[in-house]
Order: sequence, then C-alpha cells, then structure tokens
Amino acid sequence: MVLAEDLAKQQRSISVAEFFEKNKHLLGFDSPTRGIITTVKEAVDNALDACEEAEVLPDIFVAIRKVGTDVYRITVEDNGPGIVGKNVPYVFGKLLYGSRFHQIRQSRGQQGIGISAAVLYAQLTTGVPALVISRTGANAPAHRFELMIKTETNEPDVLVHEEIDWDRTHGTRIEIEFRSTLAAKKRLLEYLRYTAVVNPHARITADIDGELTVFERVSSEVPPCPKAILPHPHGIEFGALKRIAAVSAEPLDEFLVNSFSRVGKKTAEEMIALANLKPRRKVKGLEAEELKRLLAAMQQVKVPAPPAQQCLSPIGEDLIRKGLEKEIPLDFIKSRTRPSTVFSGHSFIIEAAIGYGGKLPAEGSGQILRFANRVPLLYQQGACAITGCVSQVNWKAYGLSQAGLPAGPVLIMVHVASTNVPFTSESKDAIASIPEIEREIVLVLQELGRELKTYLNRRDKKKQQDDRARAICSIIPEIAAKVSDIVELPPLDTSPIEGKIMRKLVAKKRTSDGTVSIDVHNYTAREIAFTLYNLSRDDAADAEPKPDFVDAFDGEYNKVWKCLLAPGTVWQVTYSGSGDGSIDLRGVEENQKVVVDLDV
Amino acid sequence: MVLAEDLAKQQRSISVAEFFEKNKHLLGFDSPTRGIITTVKEAVDNALDACEEAEVLPDIFVAIRKVGTDVYRITVEDNGPGIVGKNVPYVFGKLLYGSRFHQIRQSRGQQGIGISAAVLYAQLTTGVPALVISRTGANAPAHRFELMIKTETNEPDVLVHEEIDWDRTHGTRIEIEFRSTLAAKKRLLEYLRYTAVVNPHARITADIDGELTVFERVSSEVPPCPKAILPHPHGIEFGALKRIAAVSAEPLDEFLVNSFSRVGKKTAEEMIALANLKPRRKVKGLEAEELKRLLAAMQQVKVPAPPAQQCLSPIGEDLIRKGLEKEIPLDFIKSRTRPSTVFSGHSFIIEAAIGYGGKLPAEGSGQILRFANRVPLLYQQGACAITGCVSQVNWKAYGLSQAGLPAGPVLIMVHVASTNVPFTSESKDAIASIPEIEREIVLVLQELGRELKTYLNRRDKKKQQDDRARAICSIIPEIAAKVSDIVELPPLDTSPIEGKIMRKLVAKKRTSDGTVSIDVHNYTAREIAFTLYNLSRDDAADAEPKPDFVDAFDGEYNKVWKCLLAPGTVWQVTYSGSGDGSIDLRGVEENQKVVVDLDV
Repeated sequence: MVLAEDLAKQQRSISVAEFFEKNKHLLGFDSPTRGIITTVKEAVDNALDACEEAEVLPDIFVAIRKVGTDVYRITVEDNGPGIVGKNVPYVFGKLLYGSRFHQIRQSRGQQGIGISAAVLYAQLTTGVPALVISRTGANAPAHRFELMIKTETNEPDVLVHEEIDWDRTHGTRIEIEFRSTLAAKKRLLEYLRYTAVVNPHARITADIDGELTVFERVSSEVPPCPKAILPHPHGIEFGALKRIAAVSAEPLDEFLVNSFSRVGKKTAEEMIALANLKPRRKVKGLEAEELKRLLAAMQQVKVPAPPAQQCLSPIGEDLIRKGLEKEIPLDFIKSRTRPSTVFSGHSFIIEAAIGYGGKLPAEGSGQILRFANRVPLLYQQGACAITGCVSQVNWKAYGLSQAGLPAGPVLIMVHVASTNVPFTSESKDAIASIPEIEREIVLVLQELGRELKTYLNRRDKKKQQDDRARAICSIIPEIAAKVSDIVELPPLDTSPIEGKIMRKLVAKKRTSDGTVSIDVHNYTAREIAFTLYNLSRDDAADAEPKPDFVDAFDGEYNKVWKCLLAPGTVWQVTYSGSGDGSIDLRGVEENQKVVVDLDV
Repeated sequence: MVLAEDLAKQQRSISVAEFFEKNKHLLGFDSPTRGIITTVKEAVDNALDACEEAEVLPDIFVAIRKVGTDVYRITVEDNGPGIVGKNVPYVFGKLLYGSRFHQIRQSRGQQGIGISAAVLYAQLTTGVPALVISRTGANAPAHRFELMIKTETNEPDVLVHEEIDWDRTHGTRIEIEFRSTLAAKKRLLEYLRYTAVVNPHARITADIDGELTVFERVSSEVPPCPKAILPHPHGIEFGALKRIAAVSAEPLDEFLVNSFSRVGKKTAEEMIALANLKPRRKVKGLEAEELKRLLAAMQQVKVPAPPAQQCLSPIGEDLIRKGLEKEIPLDFIKSRTRPSTVFSGHSFIIEAAIGYGGKLPAEGSGQILRFANRVPLLYQQGACAITGCVSQVNWKAYGLSQAGLPAGPVLIMVHVASTNVPFTSESKDAIASIPEIEREIVLVLQELGRELKTYLNRRDKKKQQDDRARAICSIIPEIAAKVSDIVELPPLDTSPIEGKIMRKLVAKKRTSDGTVSIDVHNYTAREIAFTLYNLSRDDAADAEPKPDFVDAFDGEYNKVWKCLLAPGTVWQVTYSGSGDGSIDLRGVEENQKVVVDLDV
C-alpha cells in the first residue's frame, strides 16, 4: 500500500508554462499545421489592438518563410505604438501577462497568453529563441531581444538585449521559428481575408513563402478605441465585491458611485437603505454578512445596462454588408446590428448578416462565418454556440431547405462583440453556450430569415410571372394561327388577349431570318416612360428607330432607347442581326412590366 | 494618441487563479447547475485515484444538501490514504498543484486544477470557505481545515487548522458550499451510474437532498494502479530533451538508458552512433546543434512502443460488457479492447462496445457513452473526437440507418485510456481530434459494426425464413385442397413439396376443435436428434406421446420431448388444449430448422 507520505512527496506546484506546454492543444497548437495560423492570429490580434489603442491606422506585415525541413519562420510587424523595453520580455516571455485582462472593454486579446504560447511552442519544437524588436517613438531607441521562457517558473529568459537602429519610428516586430507545415495556407489566407473584412481600416500585407497578397484598407477612419468601464452592479459576484471592498478607503456611498458603472448618488442611497447599512460606513470594515446584504440590494435595485457605446465597438450594418460584398458576390444581402444587452454583467452586441445566391454553391450546407470581437473564428465550428443557434432556427419557414444547418446558396455571418467573450477554450475557437447570447443570436437570425423570405418570395413570384408570360406570349399566337387556319379566316391579332391577361408593359424580342424585332406593348391604362436596354453582339447599325446611344465594349453593343408610350399602343424597333444577348426595361416597377425574350 | 508608456502602466501579471475565476466556464463552472456536477466529478475522480494508488477498495460518499435559497452544500468523503496535513492547503487551495501532472501514467486527475476550482467557485459565489478533513492512518491525527484561495497570488488562505477526532482511520472529506441548483440531478446520477460501470470495484453512496442511491461494487478486486513510466524517445520534443539534458550528470549512453523507456544499451549505442557523438560525453555539455542531431537519431532508431500494460489500466472487454448489461437491457452486445498504441509518445488504448435492441428507443439517434481514463464524459458531445468518429463510420454498411450519428436502438460506448488524454479544454468534457486516436476509434467501431451486421443479418434472415415458411406452410395446403376440389380428386399430401423447398427440420403446430397437434418433418437427408419445448397454459395430460418431462410453474407448463427422427419421416404429438404459448426446437442449428406456429 502506498502511504499518504509517499504520495505527499510527489505533490508539487505546476507552473502555468509547464501546464500549457503539456496541454498546448488548448492554446491552438494541437498540430504543426495549425501552429502557424495560431501564431499569426495572436500576433495580428495584438497588433490591431495596439493600433486601436494608439489611434493609428494599422499597417501589418506578415511573412512566412521556410527555413529548413518542416521548419518555418513566422514574422509579424506592425506600426503600433511599440512596447517599452523593460516590458518586452514579459509580454512575450511570460504566460498570463498583459494589459487587457483587468479592463472591462472589447478587445481582441484578453488573457495575455497567446503570443507567449507561440514563443513556448518554438522553444519546445526547435529551441530557437524568439526575436522581438520594438520602438516606441522617434526619440526612443529600438530594443532588440532574443528571448525564451523558463518553463519551470514561467519567467522570461532574455538571451540578448541590445539597442539598435530601426527604420520604423514606432512599432513591433516578432520573429518565431518552429516546426510546422504550410498545409493550411488556404485557411491562413482566409483568416487574413476575413480579418480585413471586419477591420476595414487595416492594411494587411502577407508574404507567404514568396507569394505576396495585399488586403488593402477600404476605410481610413480609425474606429474609436473602446473605453474601459467599471463593473456593473448586476454582474458582480460575492468574491469580487469582497475583494474590492477590502482595499477601499471610502465610505459606502462614495464606494458604490466610484466603483460601479451606472450607479449615481440616488441609486447608491437606495442600495444602502435596502441593505440596511449606514451610508458613511467605511466599506473596508463591513462583515461578510453585511456585504452579502449589500450584494443582494445591489442586484435588486434597478440600474441601467452598462454603457455599451463606450466599451464596445460593433462593426455596423453598413460596413458588414460592404465588407462581405467586396469578398463574395451575392444576389441578396442584409445585415443587422442588435441593441446591446448583458450576460452576467458583461455587455455584448450581436451583429449578423445573411447572403443568398451569387457565387455561393447551390448544393450542400450554407456557409457560416463566425466572428468574436472583430476576430474570425476558424476552428471548432461544431462546438460553437453560433453554429448551435444557426441549426436551431427553423429555416424551412424562411424558404430554405435544412438538415441541421440551412442548405443551399446561403451565407450566414455572426459577430459577437463583448467586454468578455465566453470562449469554450483558451484557443478561442468557439463561443460557449450562454443563454442570453444564444437568445440574441436566434433573434437576429430570425429577423434576417424574414428578410430572406421576402426576397425569395418576390423572386419566386417574379419567376412564376415571367414563366406565365412567356407561356402566354409564345402559345397564344400559335393557337390563334391554328384556329384561324381551321375556320379559314385571316389570322387574329392576339395582342388584346395578352393585354387583358397582363395589364402591364410587355416587351417581346424575337428573331427570324436575320431580323431582330423588339416590340413593347403598353397594356396599361396610362402613359409610360421607359428605357429599353439591348446588350448583344449585334451593332444594329440599321436599327429603326436609331438607339438614343450605344456603348460599345469588347465586341458587345449596349443599345439604349428612351421612349414614352401611350396606353394601348405599341412601339417597335427592328434591325438585322443574330438576336443574341439580352433586353431589359428600366424606369418601370418590377410588377408593372414583363420582359420576354423569345430567342432564349 | 495613447503612448507606449501609458500602455506599459496597464501591463501586469495575471495570477492563474484570477484567470480561472474570470474564465470559470473553462473548468466546467459555466452555470450554477453544472457547478454541482463538476465539483462531485472532481472530488470523486480524486478519491478514485487516491484509492487506486493506495490499493484500497473505494467507498465513496456523496451528499448534496440545500442550505439556503439557491445555495447547496456538497460533501464528498472517501476511505483513501488521506493527505498529509501540511499539503492539504495546497491540494485544495492552489490551482496547478498536484501529484499526477509530472507522471506518465493513466490517472483521472492530471492537472491539479479541478477541486481547487470548486473552492474558488465557492468563495466567489458565497464567500464560504471550504471545509477539509483528512487523516492518513490510525496513528495520525485527523486534520481539519477551513480554507480559501488568495485569488491575486493563487496561494492558499488557511482560516482554521486544527487536529480533531475522526471516526475514519484514513480518508478525506471535503465540504463546499456554493450557489447552485439541482436542475441537473438526473445527469448527476447518470454520472455516478456510469462511473460505477467503469469502476466496478467502487461502492458509491449518494445522498441527494435526502434521497439515497447506492451503486454497489460488483468486483472486490482493486485494479492494479498504473505505474509511471519514463518518456518514450519517439515522443520527446526538443525543448523537453534540452531541459532534462541540462540537469543530468550522466554520460550520454547512461543518460539514454536511464531517462527513456524502452531504450537498452544497444539501442542507446545505435542512437549515439547515428548522431555522430561520443558515448561517454556528458549530456550536460552538449551544444544545441548536437542535441538536435541526438533528437533526430532518437526518432530514427526503432524502439518498441511504451510498456502500456504497466502504465495503462483498460477496463477489459468482459467488464465493459457486464457493466453495460447490468445497467441497460440489450438484445445484442459486443465489446473490444484494441491493442495499445501511441500518439506523440503517449500510450493509449481504445476500448469500445456496441449494443442493440433491448429497451433502447427504436427512433432517433443512437446513444453514445464516452469515457476517458475511466471517467464518464457528460458535456460537449458535439465537440468530441469520439462523436466525430462515430459519425464518420458508414453505419449503413452495417445495417443501421444514419443521419450523421447512427439511428435506431443502438448504443455505442467508447473508452479512451491514455497516459495523457488530450482534452479540448480543462473542463475535460471532450477529446481533441488527434489523428492516431481517431484512427483507432474508427477501427474498433468498424470491427464492432461488422459484428453487429452479422447479428442483424442472422436476425433478418431468420425472420425472412420464418415468414417464408409460414407462408408456404399455410397457403400450399389450401391451394392443394382447392385444386383437389376442382379436379374432384382426394386431397393431396403437400408435405413433400414443402420438404423440397425447405430441406430442413420443420416443426408445425396447429390447433383445431380443442386439439393441439405438433408435427416435426425431417426433410433432410440424415437422422436428426432434437428436443421439442412447448410452453403453454395447456397441461397436456392426454398428450400422445407423453412428454419426457414437464416443468409446471405459475399456471404454465413447459413440456419437453426428446426425439430421434429418421430422414424423410414425421413425428407427431397431439393433446387437448387451447393451443396458446410457444414451441421451440433445440439441439438443431438455426439454419437447419424452421418452426411454424400456425396458431399465432
């Protein structure tokens, strides 16, 4: 039997660096392939955060170069504010060290783990120290470090520190070398592309093993950096309240106003009265029982939601739509930014967009783009609350087929912006199931679903109408001819029949024996002004009447006629040609016109 | 513009306790409901590990009691070896402190985080310190602690420490009080039930708010405690090699033999020669380049897999089957334990079982039971590699319908036993996608799938044969009678026709006018010995021939005839009765017989 004394000898502290070295998959280093993406992501996130804080338009350079069998050197350089020399070793050489962990505001990095984990991974797989250069301004020297992490203690190990000349006046450069592969190059470019989509103010230049890709900025406005706010009284837990109370020198009434967001003098008084405490008592001296009463009172008194405008930075409906349209051709797109709301005292905003058609694949599951605090999420789609919500919505009600996820040429984008994004793991791949967040996502998806349904209905109706018109216009004359033939009477003019059915402006194009004729019937009861566009390879030099103008480009001729047509009359043009191409009527409402190309 | 100096003021260390307090969902404390399950799980895991190490049959008591509005007190007490007094504060009051992190062997707890996280959660939500009592033997006093964690430093905060009388000679008791609900009571009982299934040597007694459930042990053999092994030369990374080399005083040849598992003198020499180094050189003095050559050589030289028998503790096919059958009625069950194999130098064994029919629901997805190192996994099924593998197998090929997961009355159990289970997060809910592990899981599921298919085929064939026989035996005589009638000839004997079709032993039972007759035709070409069982409410007192024996029980009579039947002949018994109940032929292969009950 092993005795407790024997076991005791084995019990000891584990450094957080040892922990993450053994559990490196928790940080997104589960495979050499993924290591590159994780490293780039962490470095780019830091660069964007720093530029935002310094109100600088980010200019980020990413390079990946093969330096040996299965060994790659990853470089990320930014034009951010830089890091003061004495802090560099901690920022890159110590896990759980950073500036954003204790602040309540939206930021990409939160934990102070990411980039040090890359340094840890490098020293584990190649033993090569990380190279860091940073400079904080024109009057400061650039600092150059070669550093590693002492795994047993989680402290930085500085091998080289020198001041050097650097051509940048401010910014940071990191170079890390580890065992990897470029198998996920496509995914890496995808990460950079979507990062550019949700950070339209950033320019990202990527040199991947010699191949250059530039994601140009589309906006030169730096989004305002979210400001840190105080904790919200409804979100605080007993342990945290006890801790801040213990270090306060203030009396209760001032403490509440100065330590919590949205608590004014009146609200504080209400809380204190409800807790049956004295306003001028020093909080430091409160007993546990009194603090519990205070906490209960803080929950009970109504307090406005945290000031989300200040601490969050949503992308906005407009920029989401523009960003997506720039990258993906779509027939339809709608975006929504929901009002801010709260889970456990943390503000959050859900933004989403739905796209349809265009070049999206017609078969299979729709595409889901997930973002958190302006960072694309690439892995663990199945484990993410966003995916869960997408599956949960009844897309059949909105005109899509569905097998878990909606199917067909559909794209769904969801962005969760929060002062504390609840990820399912430190690798920040998936958002945890928080009922408040899920509720908001489902709501916004349903809103967008209804928009999609309206679009699909209109499209279907339009298609049905066009099909019907085509059938009528092509069959009725034939029937009429047949009938005339049988009854041995001259051919009937079928236009009034069509008109009776249609009551619209009807444009028909038909070609026979090298003559193209387009006629437009006004079956309505009023005069209509319209513009006829005819794009084809026919130059229509002999057109009668002549087009108002012609755009010739690359062997194609866009011929434009502007007309005014009285009710019950017909306008016609004829020209010699093959009759290919298309026609279009503009200046007339969709439901007021029918365009039939009998040559197609 | 914010300057680097301003940012620097905000940069600071984050204690691991602060980190996990903010990210408590990473440890399975995402909701008050789940908190109870996580706490019980961590405490029970620790108890089972400690009992295994001490070779004690575990006797674990779990109590959950409501002590206030939304506040529960969770108690777990075990009869393990206890914890020496001076270590108790660290085991319970410091995250990342434990005995199993640095050992290479299968254990439930690995990180030294779990139970301290529960203490952290308690002080956060109620501020009530954890109560711990531990005693290491009859000659030692029991130590009683009330303790918390200093969040800013991740150090224990001992409020009370006293020596007390305790009726146990050895064991540990922890009581933790936090805000929670009992909404997941069913899941908690499920966790305890499946824990008992895979730990058949443990007795677990649960008192959940006054309701007592005992999971009795079914085996009184303590499974051997897995022994720690040395790292395997194929699994070591450069950083780790550098670290152990730096603290070694040995020459290279001894270092390799003494620091790695499965490396003997000859293998060491081979590695050293391949690396072009001198065997007697002190490893401490090796340059980085030399170490890299050594590492490459260590990977190249063939080394047997790590000694899995020693460091792993699979459940075994027999106990898996027995354990599942005890809890779930099934028509069919097969289990498999795969040979041990390796990922990144970590040994692992996959065990799995497949069950079918019984009381499993006929509709919907099959049930998946996931285990890792003898611990049931309850959450994040969708994110788990096990689920991924189950979906990946083509179950249609094995006779099941499938929509992602296999559907119908099927149960799939998978156990991953490893010296380092790669979980997707610290909450240890789901296994990460490791190709080697996934490959083994898919292989074992395919093996079991083939077994299932054989079973289903046999069952289907049997059913088809029976249907066909029933059709023939009931319709042919009628047709014959009709034909005889029409042609006005005496009724034909249809038996030879049936026999020609069947070439089997055919037993037929039919009842008319209160007379039951059972005849057995031997349509085969050889003499057959068989036993006929006829279970019904008829006592068959006038049976001719008389049964060889009759079992009477509770108004039913099981009548048994033993016969020997020449080829081409028929044996018959008749008796008065209602003809209810069933007949069965034994001693004859399934595919050699047809049993038809025309009364059903």
